[in-house]
Amino acid sequence: MKSFINKPEDIVKEAIDGLLINDKLAKLDRFPEIKVVLRNDWDKSKVALVSGGGSGHEPAHAGFVGDGMLTAAVCGEIFASPSVDAVLSAIMAVTGDAGCLLIIKNYTGDRLNFGLAAEQARALGYKVETVTVADDIALGADVKQRGIAGTVFVHKIAGYYASIGKNLEEVATIARQVAENTASIGLAHTECQMFTGQKEARLKENEVELGLGIHGEPGAEVIAQLPINELISIAASKIENHFNDPNAKYAVLINNLGTVTPIEMNVIANAFSKTKLAKQTSYIVGPAALMTALNMNGFSLSVLKLTEQLETGLLATVEPESWICAKKLSHPATITTPQLSALLPYKVTKNEAVAYIITCIANTFITIEQDINELDAKVGDGDAGATFASVSKFILKNLDKLPLANTKETLESIGRIFSREAGGSSGVLMSILFLGAANNYEQHPKLGKALLAGLERMKTYGGAKVGDRTMIDALEPAFKALAEDQTIIEAAIASRQGTESTKQVSKTLYGRSSYIPEELLLGIQDPGAEAMTRVLENLVKKLK
Amino acid sequence: MKSFINKPEDIVKEAIDGLLINDKLAKLDRFPEIKVVLRNDWDKSKVALVSGGGSGHEPAHAGFVGDGMLTAAVCGEIFASPSVDAVLSAIMAVTGDAGCLLIIKNYTGDRLNFGLAAEQARALGYKVETVTVADDIALGADVKQRGIAGTVFVHKIAGYYASIGKNLEEVATIARQVAENTASIGLAHTECQMFTGQKEARLKENEVELGLGIHGEPGAEVIAQLPINELISIAASKIENHFNDPNAKYAVLINNLGTVTPIEMNVIANAFSKTKLAKQTSYIVGPAALMTALNMNGFSLSVLKLTEQLETGLLATVEPESWICAKKLSHPATITTPQLSALLPYKVTKNEAVAYIITCIANTFITIEQDINELDAKVGDGDAGATFASVSKFILKNLDKLPLANTKETLESIGRIFSREAGGSSGVLMSILFLGAANNYEQHPKLGKALLAGLERMKTYGGAKVGDRTMIDALEPAFKALAEDQTIIEAAIASRQGTESTKQVSKTLYGRSSYIPEELLLGIQDPGAEAMTRVLENLVKKLK
Repeated sequence: MKSFINKPEDIVKEAIDGLLINDKLAKLDRFPEIKVVLRNDWDKSKVALVSGGGSGHEPAHAGFVGDGMLTAAVCGEIFASPSVDAVLSAIMAVTGDAGCLLIIKNYTGDRLNFGLAAEQARALGYKVETVTVADDIALGADVKQRGIAGTVFVHKIAGYYASIGKNLEEVATIARQVAENTASIGLAHTECQMFTGQKEARLKENEVELGLGIHGEPGAEVIAQLPINELISIAASKIENHFNDPNAKYAVLINNLGTVTPIEMNVIANAFSKTKLAKQTSYIVGPAALMTALNMNGFSLSVLKLTEQLETGLLATVEPESWICAKKLSHPATITTPQLSALLPYKVTKNEAVAYIITCIANTFITIEQDINELDAKVGDGDAGATFASVSKFILKNLDKLPLANTKETLESIGRIFSREAGGSSGVLMSILFLGAANNYEQHPKLGKALLAGLERMKTYGGAKVGDRTMIDALEPAFKALAEDQTIIEAAIASRQGTESTKQVSKTLYGRSSYIPEELLLGIQDPGAEAMTRVLENLVKKLK
Repeated sequence: MKSFINKPEDIVKEAIDGLLINDKLAKLDRFPEIKVVLRNDWDKSKVALVSGGGSGHEPAHAGFVGDGMLTAAVCGEIFASPSVDAVLSAIMAVTGDAGCLLIIKNYTGDRLNFGLAAEQARALGYKVETVTVADDIALGADVKQRGIAGTVFVHKIAGYYASIGKNLEEVATIARQVAENTASIGLAHTECQMFTGQKEARLKENEVELGLGIHGEPGAEVIAQLPINELISIAASKIENHFNDPNAKYAVLINNLGTVTPIEMNVIANAFSKTKLAKQTSYIVGPAALMTALNMNGFSLSVLKLTEQLETGLLATVEPESWICAKKLSHPATITTPQLSALLPYKVTKNEAVAYIITCIANTFITIEQDINELDAKVGDGDAGATFASVSKFILKNLDKLPLANTKETLESIGRIFSREAGGSSGVLMSILFLGAANNYEQHPKLGKALLAGLERMKTYGGAKVGDRTMIDALEPAFKALAEDQTIIEAAIASRQGTESTKQVSKTLYGRSSYIPEELLLGIQDPGAEAMTRVLENLVKKLK
């Protein structure tokens, strides 16, 4: 696996040091032998909160150390529980008379190591309570449940009550209440990869795992790769059935398990908002990466059944930047869009010859879309054909709404359509061209000259000129030919020559290819120029 | 590409609605035809800040809408600039007498669409200023630079000065100052994949791209996959050379371009902190995903040269949760670790027979490490062999420090070593076993019985018993044989039988396989039990 690291064995150590560029944090000086991250400003006057476990779940747990959440986090190597000594050192370092609460995820290793450390600390006279979090409902009620992302709810809410000075018993009671009232379930496209070696992919392209662990353990079920609305609905139903309480009020935490893209995480949040469970959900935390599993492409939902006390603890602000404040789960609000002038304000008029020419041009753009996209994929971003095809479809659909008997109005209408219907830069450039041509035609009613004038406007705004590897290389010679009263055949030939010349241009500051290395450009014509020339060449055939 | 979406054509729309579960945000009601996200509480009393561009860069730009940053974000489809109408609608919706600043990333499409919209808005009587951000230094000074993650510095600092009531001219001046004093460069392992189709991988396994775009444009250079400290040093030098100012004071923004794991992002932050550039860097923002490129596996550094005014704007807190507060870039602080008792507190004594047996056992664990790991990879997390091998190596190295003539002290010492040197649960379980055996041996000095008593302690803490598919299945029959004064041969045979019996156990609540589906377990013996039996079997051979 490609990764931004030095050596695999140093990852955890260096990641912790990377976190410690924050002056509010410190580490115990037996680091890296033991890896304890703790608050740099801790005075032991209140109940200390210690959590931790194997690394690979960042920002959990060290990322939640700070005022209002954890006092210390004990970090193991990747997916390995920290040693008893490390936990014991953390407890001894942060625990004063108020005592210490250990928040433990329900894995054998963590349970044993934190449990033994708690025993040893008690033997040394420290007041220590433990809470074990087992929020994963994937495996059903009859087996031991794992502690996963819902653990962060415990950090947050217990952290709040510790910070306002509640005693150890009170904080532990609240923490256990949060743990008992949290249910989580995960979904993933892939398992996670360790930094050493490459695992075989467990899932097929059309499969999703439901109820997976955060260490690459296989999911409880493999289900079909359904649309996200359906996947979320399945996961949310499991949580709803777990609580089975139509009067409950919930908070949801949407957790990125590693490498789901931010745009997808927002799609997931939207999908959650449409579930039945969302109707009972008052607050949402995230979507964000809170408890990850290295590079797993998956996410989890954790749902907390609220009481007034838990809600207060959830909503309080905290110092650690890895915690995302809970938001009220709301429906998208709308604000009235300001009124813009109509797209096609002119009176519809008919002209069959003009309609025929426009139809020919539009049909060519639609026919060549794929060709031009493929050409553009080599020297740009692969969408050159799409812009023209989509505007062409719109024009064909609205041909009977155009003022075809009036050339100036037709040019302006096409300009308006390009501006409103095409997002890309070629759309705006074409809009400028047609609006410029319309303005010019009003004063000097000659189409070739008007188009050339529009092209000049386009050059002014866009910055490119002939020789810069853009559609101007095809349009300028063609429009010049038309402006000089040459035939459409001569215009097409001139356009083809211009397009061919772009094959020699390997360096340009303008247009789609300006960010592409020179060696990739030589021998390939500009896709915009090619599209324009093809349109002219097809027009020649149709007008024969 | 596998993704958590409904239909590719609905991603942008649904992601925006997912963001809008936040009641502080709203959208213009011509959504989704135009996609404008704006503050729900905006009263037009101050300068409005509008930015935006193609989608696929989440949380930019809509994620930065909120008090202290943007007033509105205009979103295009993925990597496509929004239409002029969309930008114009946004301007008209948020601009009052104080006017509006457009923050534009330097791409032809954005420049044209935002520029034209600004022109049209001015024609309608709105006060509009624009700032174009071109922070990418990858392509050198002689070409048009792109706007990338450094743009967020402009949102943040201009946002602060707009929020405290500075006028349009002042806000625009500050925004231009930020844009001119920001330099960014990116590094990536992979290009980004669109949600439709799969691109061929551009980079080899041992290659990294330096100076890439945020739309999958190829990087300015392809360099070797070096350790991150060296990669960062190359990138940081480019930025340092760009500013070429030994007296400057900087802030750095470390941006995840999409799918770098959180633990790697911390390693990257640590690597940055070791560069020469870091010595001049006072503040760090992130590491975090601020301006992404879909699923690109890469990151970027953006560095802002500070003035007192810019520093004030940078540090102010804001409403949008996607912004990460700047932290002082600090060296990791340390706190003294509490003193624990020594690992090996007993007087060293010699016993060659005991030394030989321990050496045999340790060597076996080292020899079988890979076998046991491979077995564990099928039914657990693949580290079963590693734990025992690493402790064995430690014991061999420290054999001459053990109290070998005293059985009780030797048992306790091994227990202490397991507790301190082995992180995994088997380490603690073995520690409990040996400490329990030591305590028992003190009262009844018989090794077989002492080991059996230690095993009982282990069962109490860990929860598993014979038949649960753990090392207990091998250890209990072996220790029973020894306790009943049978030979080591008989103990090994009993242990092998116990291990064989685990092949039939497909359901268990305890141990490494308790989260693994039943069908994967049948026919495979428990790796822990197998390791113990192999040790006994080898001991039989060595003692023959």
